[in-house]
Formats: sequence, structure tokens, C-alpha cells
Amino acid sequence: MSNKPWSGRFGDATDRRVEQFTESISFDHRLFKQDIMGSKAHARMLAKVGFLTADECQQIERGLTEIQAEYEAGRFEFVLSREDVHMHIEAALVERLGDVGRKLHTARSRNDQVATDVKLWTREALARVEAGVRELQRAFVQAGRRHAGVIVPGYTHLQRAQPVLAAHVFLAYVEKLERDRSRVVDCARRLNLLPLGSAALAGTSLPIDREFVAAELGFDGITANSLDASSDRDFVLEAVFALTLIAEHLAGWAEEWILWMTQEFGFLALPDALCTGSSIMPQKKNPDVLELIRGRSARVIGALTNLLVLVKGLPLAYNRDLQEDKRALFDAFDTVEASLALAAVVVDGAELRRDRIASRIEEGFLDATTLMEALIRLGIPQRTAHEIIGKLVGQCERKGLGRLSELDDADFQAVHPALGPELRSVLGVKNAVQAFASAGSTNPTRVEGELTKWERRLKPHGPTNI
Amino acid sequence: MSNKPWSGRFGDATDRRVEQFTESISFDHRLFKQDIMGSKAHARMLAKVGFLTADECQQIERGLTEIQAEYEAGRFEFVLSREDVHMHIEAALVERLGDVGRKLHTARSRNDQVATDVKLWTREALARVEAGVRELQRAFVQAGRRHAGVIVPGYTHLQRAQPVLAAHVFLAYVEKLERDRSRVVDCARRLNLLPLGSAALAGTSLPIDREFVAAELGFDGITANSLDASSDRDFVLEAVFALTLIAEHLAGWAEEWILWMTQEFGFLALPDALCTGSSIMPQKKNPDVLELIRGRSARVIGALTNLLVLVKGLPLAYNRDLQEDKRALFDAFDTVEASLALAAVVVDGAELRRDRIASRIEEGFLDATTLMEALIRLGIPQRTAHEIIGKLVGQCERKGLGRLSELDDADFQAVHPALGPELRSVLGVKNAVQAFASAGSTNPTRVEGELTKWERRLKPHGPTNI
Amino acid sequence: MSNKPWSGRFGDATDRRVEQFTESISFDHRLFKQDIMGSKAHARMLAKVGFLTADECQQIERGLTEIQAEYEAGRFEFVLSREDVHMHIEAALVERLGDVGRKLHTARSRNDQVATDVKLWTREALARVEAGVRELQRAFVQAGRRHAGVIVPGYTHLQRAQPVLAAHVFLAYVEKLERDRSRVVDCARRLNLLPLGSAALAGTSLPIDREFVAAELGFDGITANSLDASSDRDFVLEAVFALTLIAEHLAGWAEEWILWMTQEFGFLALPDALCTGSSIMPQKKNPDVLELIRGRSARVIGALTNLLVLVKGLPLAYNRDLQEDKRALFDAFDTVEASLALAAVVVDGAELRRDRIASRIEEGFLDATTLMEALIRLGIPQRTAHEIIGKLVGQCERKGLGRLSELDDADFQAVHPALGPELRSVLGVKNAVQAFASAGSTNPTRVEGELTKWERRLKPHGPTNI
Amino acid sequence: MSNKPWSGRFGDATDRRVEQFTESISFDHRLFKQDIMGSKAHARMLAKVGFLTADECQQIERGLTEIQAEYEAGRFEFVLSREDVHMHIEAALVERLGDVGRKLHTARSRNDQVATDVKLWTREALARVEAGVRELQRAFVQAGRRHAGVIVPGYTHLQRAQPVLAAHVFLAYVEKLERDRSRVVDCARRLNLLPLGSAALAGTSLPIDREFVAAELGFDGITANSLDASSDRDFVLEAVFALTLIAEHLAGWAEEWILWMTQEFGFLALPDALCTGSSIMPQKKNPDVLELIRGRSARVIGALTNLLVLVKGLPLAYNRDLQEDKRALFDAFDTVEASLALAAVVVDGAELRRDRIASRIEEGFLDATTLMEALIRLGIPQRTAHEIIGKLVGQCERKGLGRLSELDDADFQAVHPALGPELRSVLGVKNAVQAFASAGSTNPTRVEGELTKWERRLKPHGPTNI
Repeated sequence: MSNKPWSGRFGDATDRRVEQFTESISFDHRLFKQDIMGSKAHARMLAKVGFLTADECQQIERGLTEIQAEYEAGRFEFVLSREDVHMHIEAALVERLGDVGRKLHTARSRNDQVATDVKLWTREALARVEAGVRELQRAFVQAGRRHAGVIVPGYTHLQRAQPVLAAHVFLAYVEKLERDRSRVVDCARRLNLLPLGSAALAGTSLPIDREFVAAELGFDGITANSLDASSDRDFVLEAVFALTLIAEHLAGWAEEWILWMTQEFGFLALPDALCTGSSIMPQKKNPDVLELIRGRSARVIGALTNLLVLVKGLPLAYNRDLQEDKRALFDAFDTVEASLALAAVVVDGAELRRDRIASRIEEGFLDATTLMEALIRLGIPQRTAHEIIGKLVGQCERKGLGRLSELDDADFQAVHPALGPELRSVLGVKNAVQAFASAGSTNPTRVEGELTKWERRLKPHGPTNI
Repeated sequence: MSNKPWSGRFGDATDRRVEQFTESISFDHRLFKQDIMGSKAHARMLAKVGFLTADECQQIERGLTEIQAEYEAGRFEFVLSREDVHMHIEAALVERLGDVGRKLHTARSRNDQVATDVKLWTREALARVEAGVRELQRAFVQAGRRHAGVIVPGYTHLQRAQPVLAAHVFLAYVEKLERDRSRVVDCARRLNLLPLGSAALAGTSLPIDREFVAAELGFDGITANSLDASSDRDFVLEAVFALTLIAEHLAGWAEEWILWMTQEFGFLALPDALCTGSSIMPQKKNPDVLELIRGRSARVIGALTNLLVLVKGLPLAYNRDLQEDKRALFDAFDTVEASLALAAVVVDGAELRRDRIASRIEEGFLDATTLMEALIRLGIPQRTAHEIIGKLVGQCERKGLGRLSELDDADFQAVHPALGPELRSVLGVKNAVQAFASAGSTNPTRVEGELTKWERRLKPHGPTNI
Repeated sequence: MSNKPWSGRFGDATDRRVEQFTESISFDHRLFKQDIMGSKAHARMLAKVGFLTADECQQIERGLTEIQAEYEAGRFEFVLSREDVHMHIEAALVERLGDVGRKLHTARSRNDQVATDVKLWTREALARVEAGVRELQRAFVQAGRRHAGVIVPGYTHLQRAQPVLAAHVFLAYVEKLERDRSRVVDCARRLNLLPLGSAALAGTSLPIDREFVAAELGFDGITANSLDASSDRDFVLEAVFALTLIAEHLAGWAEEWILWMTQEFGFLALPDALCTGSSIMPQKKNPDVLELIRGRSARVIGALTNLLVLVKGLPLAYNRDLQEDKRALFDAFDTVEASLALAAVVVDGAELRRDRIASRIEEGFLDATTLMEALIRLGIPQRTAHEIIGKLVGQCERKGLGRLSELDDADFQAVHPALGPELRSVLGVKNAVQAFASAGSTNPTRVEGELTKWERRLKPHGPTNI
Repeated sequence: MSNKPWSGRFGDATDRRVEQFTESISFDHRLFKQDIMGSKAHARMLAKVGFLTADECQQIERGLTEIQAEYEAGRFEFVLSREDVHMHIEAALVERLGDVGRKLHTARSRNDQVATDVKLWTREALARVEAGVRELQRAFVQAGRRHAGVIVPGYTHLQRAQPVLAAHVFLAYVEKLERDRSRVVDCARRLNLLPLGSAALAGTSLPIDREFVAAELGFDGITANSLDASSDRDFVLEAVFALTLIAEHLAGWAEEWILWMTQEFGFLALPDALCTGSSIMPQKKNPDVLELIRGRSARVIGALTNLLVLVKGLPLAYNRDLQEDKRALFDAFDTVEASLALAAVVVDGAELRRDRIASRIEEGFLDATTLMEALIRLGIPQRTAHEIIGKLVGQCERKGLGRLSELDDADFQAVHPALGPELRSVLGVKNAVQAFASAGSTNPTRVEGELTKWERRLKPHGPTNI
């Protein structure tokens, strides 16, 4: 007798090449735990409504527990012809229990079963990601504390623009990660409705209790439409999109730090233990981890594209194409979880090279805008003040001077009479940073406040948010 | 004098080819209203904190109102060398007001200005999409009412599976759209923090009141970090992702209805006014609107990819690459708004071809699963019951019979003694549909309940959710 | 001593987490054979120009042969800290040969080494794909022969349009696949320049002979610029793009045959051995292989996107991001090679259901265009003829008639006097198909000619094209 | 009477919203010239085979010439209800010529007509791109000449690696662009088969002469299968993929030059006329053109994704989804053509800052590898030599020395006895660059040879290659 769950009406055995092409056990075995969890809850419900006796239910639960133990011990045997994780577990159960095992699939289909398993898996994975995001936020906040007072150039268009506190830079990533966290939480909330009991596509004629199963499995409720439930992969796409934005944020940060690690910028030192060398160039010390974090953002975007193309144009309800969702899903989570973890390691290990930064920090007229704002305080319209400072910078360049403060008072007056000597008090990056005042700015007191705020929020024993 | 806002330090005028290559006015003019709204709020704030007199502020507000009127009347003149919408409006203001106009750009940069404008635009656009989604939900619910009692085949793998009510099919889309709506609402909530006042990247030394501006513009608060605020495009990507899932849902539905419109399925008729013909084949009546809705999902996915690639690997803070975000954003909204609107028109105009559907509804053994469940009720394990019915179907095929009910009692008994004549009461699609019982199933009473629930929820005067 | 090739200047050992994050041996071991092939050629060149003695070269070649044998026998040991396939092989060589092994890396870097390995791998893989494409073309041509004379509806907009020979449909895919083959060949030709000898990025000061190595490895020549060679991944992207179009063609074909397999179309039967069933619905027979072929096109598109994002914005020359190219490359080839193979199996096993097709082939006015062309032959302008036939079809619909031939002569005359009874000779799908005349049309003689042409071209012993 | 070509059988006029949703004239008007060109050739063929008299053909050709003149003069009137460019032109012709105009659509359909138009358009556009690529190659070669002898750091992992000639860097892009050119040529060759005459999907019963039309329109032959021809969009995807790789190459180059423009690198100066400033920071000079070239690569990748998703899973033959191909196609060409043109402008205007580069060129131990190779020449195995130089670099770092040449002879000897004073002759970047020897390396004589080779190849009057 065939071990296929559907061999009743089939004349011929499945072609071996077809088995190989259609199997999913090589990747969906990662749903093992979730499948067993779901089956146990399903069995308890079947007992509650009378399709299993209490004893049968106990046999099934015990059998499933044993099967899981085998799996975890690496002793569970996988067979290509059993197609997927669901059939492997059920077949193992039937081997143990005979007819009792054959009752487990009552009022369910692999369609709603796999939807449930994947939801359970994704819910757990989102919680891990949420923790990983928090851990990286913590690392950035600590790096901000560790580098108190360090001023670095802020850039727009990768041109030096205005001076900012290093901690302000780090906090920018904390903000981005916080939005990521918030998306992860929203996704976990939205997915948390149980599809099980939708059966193949239309529900079942058997009097099951879906709310009971939902409660057993920690769902907030049940899905409302069986056709929707068996075809829905929104939660997979939304989860991977949330991961994609995390990967994008990590890639942008990695790019910045790769720049900071260059000979030319020279802002950042990483410990040898976090770098690698070259097989040919003896002097090299490469930021490989950062490059791989940047590069692997592509992998996550590729997974999202895979999923977006996969579901495009599929009619209701389940289509076998959907089997492929898991590979992209697992891949995106594996990639982002690893990148988050290594990012925190890198941030924890990073040291800004204060002397190198300081030695060139006055290059690039980073105080020009602050000087312009000093003119505005004197009543000069912004556009006019902008032009005045523009001319002042032009003067410096013509004279080969690297700083506004190197111009003398006469140079100032020659450009505009309002440029009096008292305005020199905002020149230099230290003064300029101090001058910042607005909410959200790099003003040292405000940045200090932000660090404190985040330290409080990220306390390890704070409530979990997912 | 150049009309560039930054010509102070520049020796040469901008190359004409560069102006053409870098301009954004050809598309960012769509931010005209938002830019003026933001500038008015900014001016009021500047007056509040003392950088403008009350009179100056009034002049500016009046000037901006006039400029908007010119734009809306199509009389506003666009000039390539003025680059973008921000410079166009400000230059027009300076032309009118001279030095007073030159004060408006105090304590802001185009970087935070455009972030604010795009947030305002996106917020409005999301509200339009939310309304469009509700309208389409309403159309599906009404179509469900209009086709009360119509049974169609439900499919998995595009093979006939079990019978379902047409209304149950329509409600599946209502559920999908409801998740879409929920994502739209989440996105609108998450974006609703004001970036204005972050200035170029680091904030400003001027004592501005960002909370005031936020309140004026209906934001829930202000962004907390200036570097983050001037580089953040999460809200653009998240909005376009929400649109992408809408487009996917529409594409799946369009695919289904394109199938239903074929000669072979023959389930659906659309009015001539919603179809088009062929320039060569006189008999053709094509579902072009559905095909374009399906096809344009690709456009939205393309826009999302564009954005995902655009921001990949950009260091802090603003980079000119970001200028390109708007084209993809506008394009995605235009596409999805139009598709939603036409989808509702199509659903409203659609009529199921009841006779054609009924004439073949018994094909495909749609009642087989219900019969299997009847066996389960008799205590036969599911796997065994599955095999029994599989054999029954095999019998039909060997005998060339199209329905289980065409087998006689002896055939039933030959396969399994439990297959008694009393089980015939669940045969036929009408009986099978009636037999469904589970929550979320296609059971007629449950479907009726769902229709009523949605009619209540979608009442036109219900509270807006965004 | 560390087993890193670059540990000379490093103080600390690599962090274990970093080793795990940066390793590539888990996937680049697939380059084992190519790496050894390249190293042998490199060693022979080093001997030729005097950096190795003949004996040293023999030792190295022998050592590499033994190492490959170990790998193929599954006895080669992988160690995480050895990073990649290159270091594994070299370290194993040094273990055997000591200083002689330490000479192998002369005048090369892992940067040019991996570029060479990947080119060798891709060249082989493209040849396999080319063979797979030919095999599938052969299957389509044979299916055309097998179904000689079978007429199926041709569709536009998925509406029945004109009658076509089934063989004509199959030959359409042969044409698409032929373009695929042509792209594969172009890609293989373009990649076939040796990068080895570019060293890390700038070439080498040692007097190597790159042309010799190129000849040894079957390359058509050498790359002309070392910076380009060590950063170039065009061939990876181009190969995956060629695969993407194959996947698209397979997905379109799979969609068509999934439709043909439905109860509603009923055109196609596949053997049980190529289908699978349902775990809940006993009557199901699902075209899973076709669905997975369709679905996996998304995987290939995802791999292409991955690669396109990966290389975006990378400055010269090698960046570690590029390590990730291999996973996407391998994945795309694995997917498409398997899909091509299974597609040929499916085509070989497919049987058109001639009776079912014939029973409904006259539906949909498939002969309308041919009748219109008959009017054109009589001198009636096309647009007028189009309108006339349009009215004729309208008449049928009003009268509830399914075929033009069911209208009587009076009906014809009523619409237009030119519609004389002699025009009836083109009515009916058989006559219509016979009437086709143009090159490339479904005319039976032309289709027969095409089948013969392809049979000749695809002869198994024909010259390989790559 | 409706102006729809297919109104014969339709009862109701098209819904206005549907007209707006389905129109393509707003973008396919760009095919105006090609549509007329194709129609003239088609008319001449119809005359040749007897469906038009010589006089009718002349009328049609003259009418089409007038219509094109109207279009080019901006006097042609577009009407939404005429859907697309094909109907606009034909309707204008019928207005002029009556029944003669009504004959033009004989033996063709919009399906093969649009395929032909798009092929003609793409062929021209590819030729423009090919010219644009050559122009940019020329600019890079000239920049190489202009900066003869300038040495810059070569990078891997964005860490300084070895010294290279600036011209060698520029030539790397010439190589990449040459592969692009080659792909463009391949694509143009592969597309150059005429689809016209495939009619709607199955060919025609009229005795047309497709080879004649192909010759008239400069095609190399005709497509062999009508179903394939009317559904094929391979050439659109392949063209856009070729553009995508161009965009990728430009993005990588732009990234590099954005880095070179930073304060930190300081390698590159662009004229003011090619830069833009800041509305708030008076000192800024931003490389906007480079940023936009980089950013717009995303637009091209987005267009490719759009197309890949668009065609996914479409059954034969024409589906209305395909209408959308043109927007993505036009967009990709517009973007890449503009980027290529501006890239050449930027390269022509760029000046390397020789003093700034020279002042820091000895940083980063760029000569370390050359010194290692000198040891190899002495017979020391590469791996050992690598370790020796690694230690030497370690010595420098411990002593705070920036160059190997600052170590004294005793330091050298202390690390390894082979490190004699004669090896100092390869130290320093000038010596190191001179030392390079291998084909494709940065050796000055070889680079000079490459420049000369390319100057010859890119001669303006050389044969066009497409």
C-alpha cells in the first residue's frame, strides 16, 4: 500500500522524479515543532467535540510527544515519498497507533494545517527579531554613551554639512530600528487569527470548535472566511517586508561604517577579531562583516520579490505554488536574524578614532550654517544671509583658507557689515554643536536626554512587546 | 542674479543639461498644495517665536494663498532653472514680497521640507485608498446579496474541489481587503510625526517650536532625531508595500474573473460597456479591464522594487537619490487608486450566469468530501474514509459516471458496507453546501451572517478609520 | 599558528561568530572541481615561467588530484575557520606538500581565483541548461507529431479567438525556447575570457603567462583590465537573466496547461504518476508539477533581483558583498535545470483529450475571422467586413445560436448581400484551419513543415552549440 | 457610429471610466512614427499581392505622410475613445480616404501591429544607446589621456590595496561598457524578425507576402510561429535587462566618484556648472548628477521587475496585460539614455586633484604586495612571503610609521634575512606601479597600449555596430 494520503483513486505510483520535484520535507521539516503543537491542539478539540475519546486523544498526544523527541534527537527518519512534514508526522503516528492515528486528520486539510504551522512559526520568529532589534538598539545607545562628546561631520550628499555628535548619529539608527520594531509588532498582531478548521477551502460539515483551538494555540481569534484563510499569505509577505526594511537600515549603516573604516575617513577602528585579511595583500584589514551585512540586504529583497511574484495572479484558493513561500520566508528570517546579531557585536566592538576625527573635523566649513543663523537672528532674511555666507566661503576658497575663523575681521566686514566680530563665538565645530537648540537636533543636552530616554525604554526587564 | 537658492559661492551658472537632468518640478509639482500648507504653518510658527512680525506672517500667508490660486487656475509659470516645487513657490513669494519672502526659509531646509510635504501627500493619498478599499468591499458584499443562493465550484489547484456559495467567494475578497485597509491605517499612523524643523540634517540653532507646527498640520507629534528625519523614507516604502498587497489581491481576483469569463467556465457576464472588442476578430468580447488590473499589479511591484533599490546602501543623511522616491510613490498610488475604482465598477456590473453554472455544477465530485465526513461521523477514521471515497470516485470514472449519486446502492456497498443509502442525503452540491457547519465555512446561514456583519461595518456614515 | 591565509599582521584570532557569519564553504564547496581545475592550470603555468620546478608542479597536480578524490568520496573534511573552498583546498595541499604547497598562491589572489572558478562553473551549467532546453524542445515537437490534426481553440485575452492546430501551440514554445537557447549561447560566449592573473585588483609584478592558462582552461582569451576582471559579475547576472526568461516561458506554459487540465477546459490528461492528490478531498487529481514550475519562476526572478541589488552601487574593485552572488547563482540554475527536466517529462506524458476538445470546439465563433477574410477577398474593405461579421455574430447571440453555420442563407443576406452561400465553405474550425495560408500561420502544411524542420535541427547527434 | 474598430457586435457604448482606464494613447503615441512606417510597408505589400490597387496604395502612403506631418507639427488631435496610436492613425486615414482607408487593416491585427511597432522602436532606441555607450567610452579614454601618470589608490573592500594608474581605473569602465555594448548588439540582432502578418494569433487566410514587408522594414527575416509572435515580449525584457546592466555600471562608477568628491578622499573636482548647492548650507557643493545617476539605476531595475512580473503566468497568446510593457520600456530607455549622456558630460568635465591625491598616496602600504612578490622572486613560497610582509606591516603600525620605506634595514632584517636593502627599489607607489608586468595589469606601458587600442576602436567614423 502506498504511503500517500491520497492514493485511493490513483492507479499508478508517483513517478520518482515527480516525488523529488514536489517534495517539501527538505525545508518544511523546520515546521516540525509547530505541526505537532497544532496537531495536539486539534486532537484536544476533536476530543472535546466527540470525534476522539479521551483515551484516543491521550494516545495521540503522547505519540506526538514521542515523535517530537525523536526529531529533536535527530533520530526521526525522513522519506522522500512522504512529501512533507505533515505526512511524515501523521505517518509516524499511524505506525504507532493504527486507526487512532488515522483519525487525527478529521476536519482538517493540509491547506489549513500548513497555514497554521507557518503562522505559528512566523509568530515565534517575529518575536526573535523583535528581541534582536532591541539588542541592537541597546548597542547603539551604549556606543553613544561610550563616545560622549565626540563630534563627527554630518553629511548630506556625502559632502560634509554640519557637525554632529557621534551619539546623535547612533541614535538615528535607534529611531529607524524602532519603526522596524513597530512594524514587526503590527505584523504579529495582524497574523494572529487561527486558520485551522477552514479545511481544504470551504470549511467542514463536522461540528468542530475553532475558538477552542485558537485559545489553545494563543491566537486572538479565528479567521472569518475559509477560502480566504486557505489562500492567504499576506502575513508571510508582510513579515518579509518588515525584515526587508530592517535589512535596508542595516545596509545603510554598514555603508556608513565601511566609509568610516577607510584610510580616507579614518573614523573607526574595529578589533582584529571582527575583521579579516587578504590572501595576497599582507597589509589589508577588511570590514567583511559590514560588507556582508550590506550585501545580504539583497538576499532579503530577493526573497520579498520571490514572494511577490509567487502569489501574483493566483486564483482562489490553495495552489501548489504556495509551497514555495516557506523557503523565501525561512531565508529572509535566517539572514536578518544573523545580521542583527552580528551588527550588535560590531557596534559593541567599535571604537571611534577620536584623534583622527578631531584632526580634520574643522575641514568643510561645518560651522557655516550656524553662522548664517546668527545673521538671521540679527534680522537678515534667510536668503540674504545664505548668500552672504556663501560669499564668505568663496573668499576662503580663493585665499586657500580651510576655515571661516581664519578670515580676519576686515574680510568679514568686506562681505557684509553685519558680520561683526561677536559672531565669531559660533565658529568652530564645538561652538556650532553647542548652538543647536531645536527639538530633535544634535544639541548636547537634547542628545543626552535621548540617550537617557532610550536606556530607560530598553531596560532588559521591560515588558515584551510582542 | 541667478535664481538658485545656493548660488552664493558658485562661480559658473549651472549647465543646462544638468538642470534638465536634475529638475524635479515636472513631477514634484504634485506637492504644490502640501508645500504651501507646510509653509503657512511654518510661517505662523516663525511669527509665534519672533522671526516674523504678525504683518509679515500675514503677507506670507496671503501671498501663498494667491500662488496656490494661480497654480490651481493653471496660470502658475514653471521654469526649469528653479529645480523643484519648493523653489518655485518661494521664488514666486519673493517676487511678490521681497525681503519678507526671503525670511520664509528660516530654520528649515529643503530636506525637511520635502519630507514634510511627502508625508502630507501620502497621508491624504492613504485616506483616499482606504475609502477606495471600503467602496470595493461594499461592491463585493452587494454582489453577494445580488447572487444569494448561487453555488459555484470552489477550487484548489484550479481543480474543482467543493461547492461554495458565490457570496462566500466574494466575502473572501472582503477579508483580504480588510487586511489591506488595516495596513493602510497602520502606515498612516506610523508616518504621522512631523519632520519639519530637522533642517538640513542636524536641527537648527534658532529657537523654533516644532510641536506648534505639528499641531497645525495635524501630526501626532514630532520626529525625535534630525538625522533620521531627513534620511527617513520608511513611510514611502511602507505605503507602497501596502499598495502592493492591494494590487496583488486585485490581480488574484482579476485572474479568477478572467477565468470565469471564458467560454470554458462561462460563469460570468460583464456588460458590453465594461468590455472591449478586437480590431480583427468580430466575435470577441474581452475582459480588458480585468487584464489591465492584473497587469498593473506588476507596475506597483516595480515601484516597490525601485524604492527598495533606491535606498539600498545610502549613508546618512539626505542623498539626492531620494528625489526619485516621489515618482515611484505617485505612480503606485495612481495605479492602485484607479484599479480599486474600476474594480468596484466591474463588481457592480457583474452578473453570474446562473444557468450556465448550474448546468455543470455537479461535475467534479464536489460532494465527495462531504460524503467522506459523513463516514467519519459513523466512526470511520478519516484516512480510511478518505480511501473509501477515493475508491468510489475511481468506480465512477471506470464506469464513465460523472456523479457519485449515479452509482447504485450495490456499488456503494461493494466499496464499503458503511456506505448505506442514508448517506445519499449529503450528495449533490446543494446538500453538500447545506451540510457545512464550521465557523468561517460556506454554510448558508453563516455566509448570511457575514454579509450582514459587513453591511453594518461598511455603512457609508460609519466613522472614518484613518 | 592560525590557518588563516592572512594572519600575519593580525593580533587576535577571528571571533567565532564572525567566522560563522562570513564563511562561504557551506555553499562554495560546489566550486571544488573548478577550483582544482584552475589551480592545476595555474601550477602548470607557474612551472612554465619558472616559479615551480617540474617536480614541484607534479607534486601539486598529484596532490590536487588526491584532494579531489577525497572530496568526491565524501572524505574531505570541512572546517569553519578555513572560510572558503579556496583555503580548504590550499590548506589540504600545504598539509601534504609543505613549502611546495605554499607556492601555489603565487601571482594570484582569491579575487581572481573565485572569478575564474565561478566562470568555469557557469560555463558548464549553461551547457547543461542548453541541453535541457533542447530536450524540452524535442518533447514539444514529438507532442506535436503525436497529436497530428488535433485542433484546439486559440485564445487572446483568454477568450476563444481562432482555431489552431495543437502542434502549432507546441511549436510556439519551441520558438520561445530557441530564443532562450540563443541567449544561453551568447552568455557563454561573452563570459569566456579568463580573469586569472588579475591578482587582487591590479595584476602582478611577476612574469606570468595568462594566455597559457586561458588555453589550458578552454577560455577564448584573457580579460583586458585587472580592476574590471576582479569586480565583474556581469556574467552571473546575464546567466541568471537568461534563466529567468526560461522560467517565464515555463511559467506561461504551465499556466496554460493548468487551465487545460481543469474540469472546465478538459483538454488535457496527465498520467496519475505525474499528479498528486489531496489529503482531504478524495476525488482530486492535481497538476502539482505544473504549479510548482509556475511558482518556481518566482524563485528565479527573486535570485535575479538579489543579484541586481547586490551589485548596486559597489565601487571598484572586489567587495565582500560579492561572495553572496554564488548562492543566488546556484539556486537559479538548480531551479531551472529541475524545471526543464520535469517539463520534458510532463510533455512526454501528456495526452490531449480529443473527444472532449472536439465536443466543444465549435463554440466561440472561431471561424468568424476567416469568414471576414473571405469577404475581404470579395473586395469589401476590412473595417466594413469586420462590422458585417460583427452583426452576424450579434444575430447568432440574439437567436441563441452557437455557430455561424446555424444561421440560414436569409440571415446571411439580411446582414449583407455579399454574404452568399458559397462563403459557407470556410465555416467550421476544420475549414478555417485549412484556410490559413500565411507564413508562420497554423496552416496544416506549414505546421507540418515546421515540425520537420525542428526534428532535423534537434537531432540528438547534431553539433553542440555551446 | 462608434469610432471603435470592434463595435459591430456591441450593444452599449464603452463606459467612459473604462475608456480612461484602458487607453494607451497617452504613452503609445511615441510609436507614431513606427506605426506609420509599418503601415506604409504593409500597404505596399497589400498592393503587391493585389488587395490594394497601385492608386489606393499611393493614397494611403500619402495620407499617412500627411498624418505624420500633422503629428510632428503638434497639430494631430488625440481622442480618448480612440484608445491607442493604431486606431488614431487609422481613423485619421479613414476620415481622409473613406473606404480606401478601411482596407489598410487587411490581414493584420493590432496584436502583430503593436509587436512590429515596438520592435522598430526598440531597434532604434538600442542604436541610440549603443552610440551613447561609445560616447561615454570615449570620454573615459580621453580622461585617461588627460590624467597620464596620475596614480591613485586601488581598493578592495574599500580599503587601500595597491596603487593603480587613474587611466587603468577609467579603462575598467570602458571594459564594462564594452560588454554592455555587446549585449545591446546581441539584443538588436535577436529581435530583428518581423512579427507582422501573424495577425491576431493564428496568421491569416489571405495570401500575404511577409518576407517583402520584412525587407521593406529592414528586418532580417520573419517570425516562424504566429502564436509565439503575438505573445512574445522577450525582446522588451532583454533590452531592458541590457539597460539594467548599463545602469548598474553607471551606479557603481557614480558611487566611486561620489566618494572621490568627498572632503575625505578629495581626489576629484567637478566644475561648478555640473554641481548644485544647498538651500540652507552656504558652503555645500554637491555631486547631484552622480547621485541621480546612481539613484536612477533603481528606476531601471524597477522597470525590469515590472516587466518580469507582467509576463509571469500569462497563457498564449496576446493578453491585454501586455499593453503595459511600453511604459516600462520607454521609461528604462529614457532613464539610461539621459544617464549615459550626463555621465559623458561629467567625465569630460572631471579633473583629478593631483596634489591632494599625491599628498596621501603613500598611506595604506600600497607597495606591500609588490614587496611580497619581490620575495617570491627570491624563491620564498608565497604563503611564507605573505606572512613576512604581514609582520613588516605590523612593525610599522607598532612604531607608528606610515610607510614600509620608513623602516630601516635592521627592521627589515629582523623580520627576515631575505629582506635585503636591494628590495627597497620596489617601494613607493611609483616603483610599485612600474613593477607591474602582467597582461591586463596597471603597468604603465600596458595601460598606454590599452588607451591607444581604444582610441582606434572608438574612432568616430568607425563602422556602426548595430
